[in-house]
Amino acid sequence: MKVLGIDPGTAACGYGIVHESDGRIRALDHGCWTSSARERPEIRLRGIFDGVTGLIAAHEPDAVALEESFVGADARIALFVGQARGAALVAAASAGVECTEYAPARVKQAVCGYGRADKGQVGRMVRMILSLDVEPPTSHAADALAVAICHASMPPLARMAS
Amino acid sequence: MKVLGIDPGTAACGYGIVHESDGRIRALDHGCWTSSARERPEIRLRGIFDGVTGLIAAHEPDAVALEESFVGADARIALFVGQARGAALVAAASAGVECTEYAPARVKQAVCGYGRADKGQVGRMVRMILSLDVEPPTSHAADALAVAICHASMPPLARMAS
Repeated sequence: MKVLGIDPGTAACGYGIVHESDGRIRALDHGCWTSSARERPEIRLRGIFDGVTGLIAAHEPDAVALEESFVGADARIALFVGQARGAALVAAASAGVECTEYAPARVKQAVCGYGRADKGQVGRMVRMILSLDVEPPTSHAADALAVAICHASMPPLARMAS
Repeated sequence: MKVLGIDPGTAACGYGIVHESDGRIRALDHGCWTSSARERPEIRLRGIFDGVTGLIAAHEPDAVALEESFVGADARIALFVGQARGAALVAAASAGVECTEYAPARVKQAVCGYGRADKGQVGRMVRMILSLDVEPPTSHAADALAVAICHASMPPLARMAS
């Protein structure tokens, strides 16, 4: 199965596509879209929408996986993170691909075997699992690959229940 | 000019389209899309995206206007409001229509002449300004019409600076 993982954010939105076959997982693509705060909000969000739409058209993933966004005390930041998530979710739904969300601790558990792993450990484990030559260039791309790995490595029944 | 006003929310998303000509404003359409919490989040957001896309195709508004969302202390709620806003903004941007946001006090000032008007006053003034037979059926539709009126009644230079 192919999974598109997304780490949503307006300033930087990470993506990663993995392909799982017979328990082996490899990366097909990963990266990060960035946009400037000088651009109009709706144009920045359209960048995410167009990016996700383009990746789905190119790779035809079976599923889209997102990490549940950590929302701290700042409701203003949560609003902006929500807008970026909305752009990504709408792109997936418009293409008819189901979305699944995972708690951050579950993603870390799946990738590092430890729910409280730090960003450095996630990047190193993502590189190892996917046999990448180098670590993903940004933590956004690494996080997107991590949630894609998490979904792709779930037992089928657990995946359906998510 | 035609303006599509939107009051974004996942459970209930209000919309209202007004047409301004020579200082007279009338309503072309208004209402509210609702969705159940039992539906998948991305399907609920696609409902908003499809709704906004359909209204823009049908009415070809010159602008989309949204009220800046009031975000209280609850970051979790702000995240969900943000997702609904993202769906609406992406639909506008995909159709090439510019979005403008107004602070709630500015909308109330434009519609009621008083920045701290309550929901009841907004509904009554919206009905009066647009010569509607009855008040909009929900406060979401009334709020959407109110922000559309606010944008349509701005002096042109103030509208560009928003």
